Amino acid sequence: MEKTSFADMRCSLARSLEKIGDWWTPLILRDLFIGVTRFDALIEDLGISRNLLTSRLKALEAQGIISRRVYSQKPLRHDYFLSEAGRDLVPILLALTAWGDRWARPDEGAPLLFRHRRCGKIFEPQVTCSDCGEPIRAEEVDVLPGPGGAAAPGTKIVAQLVAAQIPHGRPR
Amino acid sequence: MEKTSFADMRCSLARSLEKIGDWWTPLILRDLFIGVTRFDALIEDLGISRNLLTSRLKALEAQGIISRRVYSQKPLRHDYFLSEAGRDLVPILLALTAWGDRWARPDEGAPLLFRHRRCGKIFEPQVTCSDCGEPIRAEEVDVLPGPGGAAAPGTKIVAQLVAAQIPHGRPR
Repeated sequence: MEKTSFADMRCSLARSLEKIGDWWTPLILRDLFIGVTRFDALIEDLGISRNLLTSRLKALEAQGIISRRVYSQKPLRHDYFLSEAGRDLVPILLALTAWGDRWARPDEGAPLLFRHRRCGKIFEPQVTCSDCGEPIRAEEVDVLPGPGGAAAPGTKIVAQLVAAQIPHGRPR
Repeated sequence: MEKTSFADMRCSLARSLEKIGDWWTPLILRDLFIGVTRFDALIEDLGISRNLLTSRLKALEAQGIISRRVYSQKPLRHDYFLSEAGRDLVPILLALTAWGDRWARPDEGAPLLFRHRRCGKIFEPQVTCSDCGEPIRAEEVDVLPGPGGAAAPGTKIVAQLVAAQIPHGRPR
């Protein structure tokens, strides 16, 4: 089944999803971040098929999210690393992990804890305002039209709503 | 094609992805957040098929991420709203949108801007440390085993790596 492409949608969320590629990808990025960097180790860790992993790694490299390096010439073998764009995704994946800890946690508790090397504390990743530093709550965000917005496929109505500044995100 | 289930993986990122469901879901949540809350409007905005949207809305309701309310009895019609768990996803979707603005922006610029009602400023959503408040960078995060971790499918090697505290996220 051909997946609908989000690449041309006038929405940076849609474009992010398109770049990320599919549902396995965040877990592949998780593994590269934690240090599972070789093909066979990724296969064993994730239980993903070889074909699917090959295609996902290629796509991630084409999107500039990962890069690879030869670690063996005979046989030719690579390991994989996060690029700058890939490392920039990590905090967002951590925030999504924390959401899972809140809403889909195993009975035993959180599978992973995160420590901030800068301050030394176990922390919870929070999404905050770059200006005032307060945690962002959905109810406190106004969405405004940006220079790249357009009422095009994927944003046909949204772009109009935003342009008209209709109150949003609440039952009316 | 039956998708692999991430529901039982000992990883809150995997469980988050499973709860969210598929690639369309973040865009559906975006629309509910911005105020596109009716079935036909979602169809028109996203260009998604009726069948796919129906199944996605059902799954999101079953996962506790959205709820619905009758707005017309004859014909019977609902509109859809974010639940508490759904609203708790919004800041993460905003952070992912900002990533798209950095790495996949249309030439014209960001399609949307966000204003924080609390401080009145246009802001960029940042993922920060709940303890020291500094932005999180991938290089500054140590991953430690939590109480719910297990070397099970989806985390077979990762859980061992984390338990052994092997340095991660950098080329070795």
